[in-house]
Amino acid sequence: MAILVVGSVAFDSIETPHGKVDHCLGGAATHFALAASYFTDVRVIAVVGEDFLPKHEAVFSARGIDTRGIERAAGLSFHWTGAYEGNLSEAQTLGTDLNVFERFEPKIPDAYKDSEYLFLANIDPVLQARVRRQMTNVRMVCGDTMNYWIKDHAANLAVVLRELDVLLINDGEARMLSGKTNSVLAAEAVLAMGPKSLVVKHGEYGATAFFGERSFFGAASVPRPFRAPALPLSEVVDPTGAGDSFAGGFYGYLASQPELTPAVFRRAMFYGGVMGSFAVECFGTERLQAVTREEIDARFELFREISHLDSAV
Amino acid sequence: MAILVVGSVAFDSIETPHGKVDHCLGGAATHFALAASYFTDVRVIAVVGEDFLPKHEAVFSARGIDTRGIERAAGLSFHWTGAYEGNLSEAQTLGTDLNVFERFEPKIPDAYKDSEYLFLANIDPVLQARVRRQMTNVRMVCGDTMNYWIKDHAANLAVVLRELDVLLINDGEARMLSGKTNSVLAAEAVLAMGPKSLVVKHGEYGATAFFGERSFFGAASVPRPFRAPALPLSEVVDPTGAGDSFAGGFYGYLASQPELTPAVFRRAMFYGGVMGSFAVECFGTERLQAVTREEIDARFELFREISHLDSAV
Repeated sequence: MAILVVGSVAFDSIETPHGKVDHCLGGAATHFALAASYFTDVRVIAVVGEDFLPKHEAVFSARGIDTRGIERAAGLSFHWTGAYEGNLSEAQTLGTDLNVFERFEPKIPDAYKDSEYLFLANIDPVLQARVRRQMTNVRMVCGDTMNYWIKDHAANLAVVLRELDVLLINDGEARMLSGKTNSVLAAEAVLAMGPKSLVVKHGEYGATAFFGERSFFGAASVPRPFRAPALPLSEVVDPTGAGDSFAGGFYGYLASQPELTPAVFRRAMFYGGVMGSFAVECFGTERLQAVTREEIDARFELFREISHLDSAV
Repeated sequence: MAILVVGSVAFDSIETPHGKVDHCLGGAATHFALAASYFTDVRVIAVVGEDFLPKHEAVFSARGIDTRGIERAAGLSFHWTGAYEGNLSEAQTLGTDLNVFERFEPKIPDAYKDSEYLFLANIDPVLQARVRRQMTNVRMVCGDTMNYWIKDHAANLAVVLRELDVLLINDGEARMLSGKTNSVLAAEAVLAMGPKSLVVKHGEYGATAFFGERSFFGAASVPRPFRAPALPLSEVVDPTGAGDSFAGGFYGYLASQPELTPAVFRRAMFYGGVMGSFAVECFGTERLQAVTREEIDARFELFREISHLDSAV
């Protein structure tokens, strides 16, 4: 079933120990949409400037992604400049030019209104809430956020958190949002803010899912946490978009399944890790554009192999 | 089959956010031996002072651990004072009184000479090498080390590394030993120093095993890395000895099995995590003394549940 994603479509200028790229296609909605497109239909709501050319749109169309919700505005697209050092675990932001994104007012095309899965990528929680309210018939809402909104827009974010079936954040964000250093206590505190489940990403160590009492599995008992591995990678070329690609693989797989069960959720966690592992192999969206479903499923089996007791060598 | 462990039997004074203990029984060989004792026979070589009383020896005897190799010397036992803050991930050493440990010269009782599994806990690599040389008939040698030896005793450590079937260290030690920040490249560099396999502990994120070309599985191809989870814990009372308890569970299980296969190695990684998760539940060795094999196996199943795709909810 179709996923509607609202978020940034942007250009990134990135420097890592492996090289440098200037103005490559990026943005949370871009990485998410490309990763999810291998599993289900994806529709994008975003705003871009005059520097968003047909060749950029072709990246989406080639993957069958619906771009009718990508609004064109006068001016330049959102542009992020960042660098990574050492073990590439943390980005250093060198510049954020919001450009047309500064006045982004998401508009939902009529053709998108029947989307059953909604993904609120990392944008102003006021906009996340506004989109959520307009999508009255969604089956499931999944969202992301970041330190900036947690720190300075807590009240607005609180409104969004209450609406989420899944909140996808990283360790640092979970600690900041909860004020707790212990990861289990942090998860409990975040779940108490409203999301039915929480997926915490640990970078190279994988991800953990925690479930609240208000579980969407309809089970009387709360499922235990679930830990998915990440693939040990000898080369991370560019970590930009790894988290959004995880979200795309995770949510894309969920949306492709007829029913949401704990087993489906666990497989979705693995597919999230799989898409994240592909994303970092090249700069920008290069790898996510070119990967095949066969490669994805082979890597899924690799994730199983490296983490399951009964796996073949 | 019996494991011979050489290392420290000591007293620890520890402060964590959960409280404070003074001179409780500790030391790498102690935590290792207690954890391993749930799987196989364990024999200890260490030195203690006059403050090591019958009640301390009883902790070992109650678990059937052979203490004939624990030498009594005039003076006080090794005493470590440390504190943990925040998320308890790193110990702050406040004092290290080597005492009788300063002149530790491991002596191997004749009754220990037929031990088939040797564990070289974190001590001076010169002593590790000396013990290794005397144990000519061992089937397997596993060892630990720490930053201090890596930094200032590299040449001595290099001798030991060449003798190891398994080196068990943590992320920081792997980075320091290899000079690499990427964990896969770090593992490759460490394996090139001699150990046939490497288990890197990630604290709350579990552990990863890497295998060298000189694999002891006898397989033509090198096994892939294997990732074992850690249990998300809402309360870590005292992390002291968690790594040694991991080693005890890991190696104790290995030594209890008739054959070393990749499947056995993977299960050993899980048992390592299980024993580490028990160790941190109480101060000192309290939990490791009282846990039952039934609890251990139940937690092993819990580790499987939280990490396997086909697990029950």
